[in-house]
Amino acid sequence: MSYKNFPMVPRVVFGRGSFNQLSEILDPKRLSINAPFIFLVDDVFKADGNLTSRIPLAYDDKIIYVSAKEEPKTDQVDSIVKDIILSTKERPSGIIGIGGGTLLDLAKAVSIMLTNEGEAKDYQGWDLVKNPAIYHVGIPTISGTGAEVSRTTVLTGPEKKLGINSDFTPFDQVVLDSELLQGVDKNQWFYTGMDCYIHCIESLNGTYLNAFSQSYGDIALSLCKEVFLKNNLSQIEADEKLMMASWHGGMSIAYSQVGVAHAMSYGLSYLLGTKHGIGNCIVFNHLEEFYPEGVKLFKQMKELHGIALPQGICANLTDADFDTMIDISLDLKPLWENALGKNWQKIITRSKLKALYKKM
Amino acid sequence: MSYKNFPMVPRVVFGRGSFNQLSEILDPKRLSINAPFIFLVDDVFKADGNLTSRIPLAYDDKIIYVSAKEEPKTDQVDSIVKDIILSTKERPSGIIGIGGGTLLDLAKAVSIMLTNEGEAKDYQGWDLVKNPAIYHVGIPTISGTGAEVSRTTVLTGPEKKLGINSDFTPFDQVVLDSELLQGVDKNQWFYTGMDCYIHCIESLNGTYLNAFSQSYGDIALSLCKEVFLKNNLSQIEADEKLMMASWHGGMSIAYSQVGVAHAMSYGLSYLLGTKHGIGNCIVFNHLEEFYPEGVKLFKQMKELHGIALPQGICANLTDADFDTMIDISLDLKPLWENALGKNWQKIITRSKLKALYKKM
Repeated sequence: MSYKNFPMVPRVVFGRGSFNQLSEILDPKRLSINAPFIFLVDDVFKADGNLTSRIPLAYDDKIIYVSAKEEPKTDQVDSIVKDIILSTKERPSGIIGIGGGTLLDLAKAVSIMLTNEGEAKDYQGWDLVKNPAIYHVGIPTISGTGAEVSRTTVLTGPEKKLGINSDFTPFDQVVLDSELLQGVDKNQWFYTGMDCYIHCIESLNGTYLNAFSQSYGDIALSLCKEVFLKNNLSQIEADEKLMMASWHGGMSIAYSQVGVAHAMSYGLSYLLGTKHGIGNCIVFNHLEEFYPEGVKLFKQMKELHGIALPQGICANLTDADFDTMIDISLDLKPLWENALGKNWQKIITRSKLKALYKKM
Repeated sequence: MSYKNFPMVPRVVFGRGSFNQLSEILDPKRLSINAPFIFLVDDVFKADGNLTSRIPLAYDDKIIYVSAKEEPKTDQVDSIVKDIILSTKERPSGIIGIGGGTLLDLAKAVSIMLTNEGEAKDYQGWDLVKNPAIYHVGIPTISGTGAEVSRTTVLTGPEKKLGINSDFTPFDQVVLDSELLQGVDKNQWFYTGMDCYIHCIESLNGTYLNAFSQSYGDIALSLCKEVFLKNNLSQIEADEKLMMASWHGGMSIAYSQVGVAHAMSYGLSYLLGTKHGIGNCIVFNHLEEFYPEGVKLFKQMKELHGIALPQGICANLTDADFDTMIDISLDLKPLWENALGKNWQKIITRSKLKALYKKM
């Protein structure tokens, strides 16, 4: 028996307004005046002077704005890496991702691909990365994915949607500033928050669970309930609690795994480009069989916040389309094993998956 | 406003039997065959072949057995450091502490003092350490202190009992193997576990608390209650939950502080050599005024486990003795400020402290 030697984010700042400490954090990490910091920033902030004016640019540092409208892709990572290599005099001092899960995952992947040969798709899987990534910092502006603590960066490649899971993936530094969560669209807030909630349900009901992961999952779940089921928190309290829920929810996966909702939503995402948060919600809504209590509570929260999920997104799909989604989904073996145990293949058949997808 | 950039333990293994992975963990960290690993091990394990035979010794590696009967001292650190320097060909590859809070704190302090000039007492305080410590690993064999995650190593020096609080203090690696908790003396199990419980009460009731620390404190407190108030856990479950309680309780101090019990027990410890765990219990037992709910629950747990605390330990002390304890205690300003707010000096007077000590 061998247990994972889990890499934790070695530095974290938590506090409202802590984004203003970025310069102080980055300065000692600058390798030379020719080795810039590259800020990957969600392009919704392009017009937001309040955030962008506080990004501490010096020497050849630059901001690359990236749209988070679509899920991050392996060729997108390759293209950003190529641009960075062509436009910098030396290997960058660091990559700073500012945004939601998409931007954080891109920052992690880019920092890995700057020191590892080949293409991002070559590293989709478990422990395929050979060289340490360059210094990378994660600054979430929306909470729930756990991307700020996880050892994966989930990318859609030509053949699969799968994470680059490695000890070099986690951020070297995270800044948790709840001020940055202001102004998030309500639907997006709910979908991303539910990503955390669904992590917890999948982790806590999984066969991989141990006392380490359970303790993180329990607190994350309890924080999710405070945020999404109670109406007695101030906006700041709710933001900070959701930020911590995302953090602990991500840690809960350390010795555990996600489960049925994630495995199925990867299929939707690969075929239809469905974003991760909403995709998880669409799937989870139909998983009473696997997570009866979790789905019941999810429906309560959805109701309470007046969220209407898209219906019939699989209505016009062909058999070939369903097969594609099913292939992508069934390929995520650790997720199924965590959810259903070693004999998962006897429980979840292709026809069962198809029937579930047809409901969505 | 500036927030602490908190250093987290960057690597953690959790799992029953994970101690057997030590060789795999340490091998890549060996700097040369002349740079040994030094294992600081609680001398209660001297006769325990099951543990000591599994310590992976190679080249010039060696075990130094240390008694944990007394609290760790600055001159003890200096003496171990001197022995190591005199007996090794090169600076060690790493220091591995195996034991309770005393051994973990010694390992942290020794690893710091191998790269920093002067004596350990020079570094008692906040952020006085200049150079990174050598690689150091913490392996708890008793749970509660949170020493495995904290950024302090609490030492008794010639003038004060105070931690070396620094970003270089936390371990580079922690191994959490609940098998190692077997055979702990019941009183010691309770006192050390209560150190965690008291951390939580002090942190959660403190003025420094933020959402980060609260989330860790809440889960640690809830785990303590499971372990010490319920009788429905298997021994393994109870051990693993206490291990995680200690971990999260330690993290809860990240942006918070301990409070009245710790501030007062440092006085007992300095003057009378009272060990930290039992000292906290002796003090906390009389702190209804500050932590009414917390003390009530503490008394329930004490009752449930049939623990009889020593009485009258201050009965024969002189006025000078009380003054010494009061000086040591009042010097811990951040603890008092956390407990009682900015105006703490108006609330806790020397005569009040003396009256409290007299009850113990």
